[in-house]
Amino acid sequence: MEDENTSTIGVDLGGTKIEVAQVNISGQVLRRKRLPTRVNEGPAAIQSEIAETVLELQKQADTMPIGIGIGVAGQVDPVSGVVHFAMNLGWRDVPIRDVLSEALRLPVFVTNDVRAATWGEWVHGAGQGCDDLICLFVGTGIGGGVVSGGHLLTGCSNTAGELGHIVVDLHGPLCNCGNRGCMEALAGGWAIARSAREAVENNPSAGSVLLQEAGGNPERISAATVARAVRKGDPLALKLIESATEALVSGAVGLINAFNPCRLILGGGVIEGLPELVDRIDRGVRQRALAAASAPLRILPSQLGNQAVAIGAAIMAMRELTVKDPD
Amino acid sequence: MEDENTSTIGVDLGGTKIEVAQVNISGQVLRRKRLPTRVNEGPAAIQSEIAETVLELQKQADTMPIGIGIGVAGQVDPVSGVVHFAMNLGWRDVPIRDVLSEALRLPVFVTNDVRAATWGEWVHGAGQGCDDLICLFVGTGIGGGVVSGGHLLTGCSNTAGELGHIVVDLHGPLCNCGNRGCMEALAGGWAIARSAREAVENNPSAGSVLLQEAGGNPERISAATVARAVRKGDPLALKLIESATEALVSGAVGLINAFNPCRLILGGGVIEGLPELVDRIDRGVRQRALAAASAPLRILPSQLGNQAVAIGAAIMAMRELTVKDPD
Repeated sequence: MEDENTSTIGVDLGGTKIEVAQVNISGQVLRRKRLPTRVNEGPAAIQSEIAETVLELQKQADTMPIGIGIGVAGQVDPVSGVVHFAMNLGWRDVPIRDVLSEALRLPVFVTNDVRAATWGEWVHGAGQGCDDLICLFVGTGIGGGVVSGGHLLTGCSNTAGELGHIVVDLHGPLCNCGNRGCMEALAGGWAIARSAREAVENNPSAGSVLLQEAGGNPERISAATVARAVRKGDPLALKLIESATEALVSGAVGLINAFNPCRLILGGGVIEGLPELVDRIDRGVRQRALAAASAPLRILPSQLGNQAVAIGAAIMAMRELTVKDPD
Repeated sequence: MEDENTSTIGVDLGGTKIEVAQVNISGQVLRRKRLPTRVNEGPAAIQSEIAETVLELQKQADTMPIGIGIGVAGQVDPVSGVVHFAMNLGWRDVPIRDVLSEALRLPVFVTNDVRAATWGEWVHGAGQGCDDLICLFVGTGIGGGVVSGGHLLTGCSNTAGELGHIVVDLHGPLCNCGNRGCMEALAGGWAIARSAREAVENNPSAGSVLLQEAGGNPERISAATVARAVRKGDPLALKLIESATEALVSGAVGLINAFNPCRLILGGGVIEGLPELVDRIDRGVRQRALAAASAPLRILPSQLGNQAVAIGAAIMAMRELTVKDPD
C-alpha cells in the first residue's frame, strides 16, 4: 500500500520540548513544528496540544499521514501503548496511544525516545546499510540503542540499551540511578555540570571563567556552560571535559568489546556542543579496545541530530503499519 | 534426516585439555574422552590426536556421527574454519576444519569455545527455553556469550562476547589485553592469582595461609589456592575474593543494564571453585542494577559445567548439518 507519498507523523516527546514532524517513506521531513513541553499542565493538556499540532500539520499536508509514531523520554510498553514512567514529564501510567488514536482517528505507535532515535539513525542516518551498530546519545543523561545482526535489541522486558548505566569506575561518584560510577555519572550532561559546580566551589579562582559564563551563579553552571568555557580555552573546563571523555572512552571500549559493532554513532547535546569529542573518543578507543573488536569499527557523529527521535518514531510507525516482519 | 539416533562429535580444544564427546540430538553425551593438550608438539600432532580420538569414539558408537563441531579457545573464522590466533595453544592460522574433515571424511564446523559453551547452555543447559540470556564464564580469563531476541550475537567481525573486557575500573590495574581495569583484570583467575601474590609479597604474615596452600612458593599461588584458603576462613583470601566479587557485580550490572537479559548464567573454573559467588553476585546485582532491567532477571549457575563447550560445539555442528535457519 505504500508509495512515495506515504507519510507518517513522528513525535519527539521530551521534558523540555515536543517536536512534531511529518515524514515520508524516504525519511524526509516534509513539515515540522516544535513547541515547549508544558510539564506543569499535566498529561491531558500535553496530549491535547500534541493532537492539535498533528491536526495543524495535517491541514498543510498534500496527503493524509497514515499513522503516528511517538518517542517518549521514559519507560513505555509498546504493546499497550502506555507510558509507564517518564521522570522528566512527571508521568506515570499514561495511556497515550489510546488517547491520541481516539482523538486523531489514526493508528498510534509508542516507543522509547532513544530507541526511536537509534532506529532513525539506522535506517536514514549514519547507520544506513549497517547491520551491527551502537548509537550512544550523550545528553543530560546517556542512553543508546544496539542493532546486532540486523535486529534492534529490546531485551527481556524492553529495557535493553541503558548504555549510560554501564559501570566504568566502580569506586566512582554516585549516579542518579542509585549505583556508583556509571558512565552517565561521569560524562552525562548533569554529571559534567555537577563536577563543574563542585570544582568552582572548591576553587573559585580557577573557576572564574565558568562562573562568568554562568552569570556569576554557580547553580546555573550546566554542561553547555562548560562547553562555552572550553571554546575560550579555560583550563578547568578543558580538564572537566578530559575526565568526561575518559569515561566515555572507557564505556565505549566495553561496549565495543562486548558487542563488536561495525559503527559507533555518537549523538546528543554534549556531543553536539563539543563535536571534537567524536575524534577524541575514536583515538581513545583505538588505543584501548581489543584490536580484533575495533578493527572493522567506524565512529561517526549522528546524522539526524535533534530530529532523530521524530524521524525514527515516524518510520517505526510506518514499518508497523506497512510491513510485516518475519520476527 | 535427523532422528533420535542422530549424533555429532563435539571437541573442546583448550590450552590444557582436549575433550571429545559424542552427543546425540537431545544433547546427551553418549561417550567421551579427555586428554591433555600437548601444546609443545604443535598443531599437526594435536590435530592427529583429535582425529585418532574421534575414530576411537566412532568405533564404540552404534551409529555413525554425522559431523564434528570444534570449540577452540581462540579467534576462529567459522566460514573458513581457520583458527586465526589461539594464545594458549600457540597457534596462528591453522586450517583445522580442512585438516580434520580430510582426515575423518566428515563435515567439520569450527567455532570459538565460549560461543560453543553459550550455545550449549542455551539449548540444553541453564538457558533452555529462554530467548534473552547472557553466559559469563569466569575462568583463568573471562568470556561470554549473549543471546538476545533468540539470536546468538556474533557482531561485525565475529568477536562479540568479549565480556571480560568491559571496563569496570578505569583507574584499575593493567589487563593482559593492554587496557586498564577490565573486569577480567580484577576478577579473572589470573588476576585473582596476581593480586594474591602481590598481597603475600607485601605482607607475608597475613599471607601465611595462602603461602602454605601453595607449598611455600608464592609463584605457585593460583585462583584455586585462594579458593582453598577461603574454605579455611583465611581473612586475606576472603578479602581478595570480596574485591573480585565487587568487580564481577559491577560488570554484571553494566551488562544487565545494557542487554536486559532474562537470565544470567555463571560458569567457569572460578565460579565452580567458589559456587557461593552465584548468590553473592545475585545480591549485588539486585542492589545496583536498574530496577526495570533486573526485575525479570534470574541468575543461575551453568548446568553443563566443564562439558558445555563439547556439548555446545556438537549441537552447533548438528544444527549446521540438519537445519536451515531463516537468518
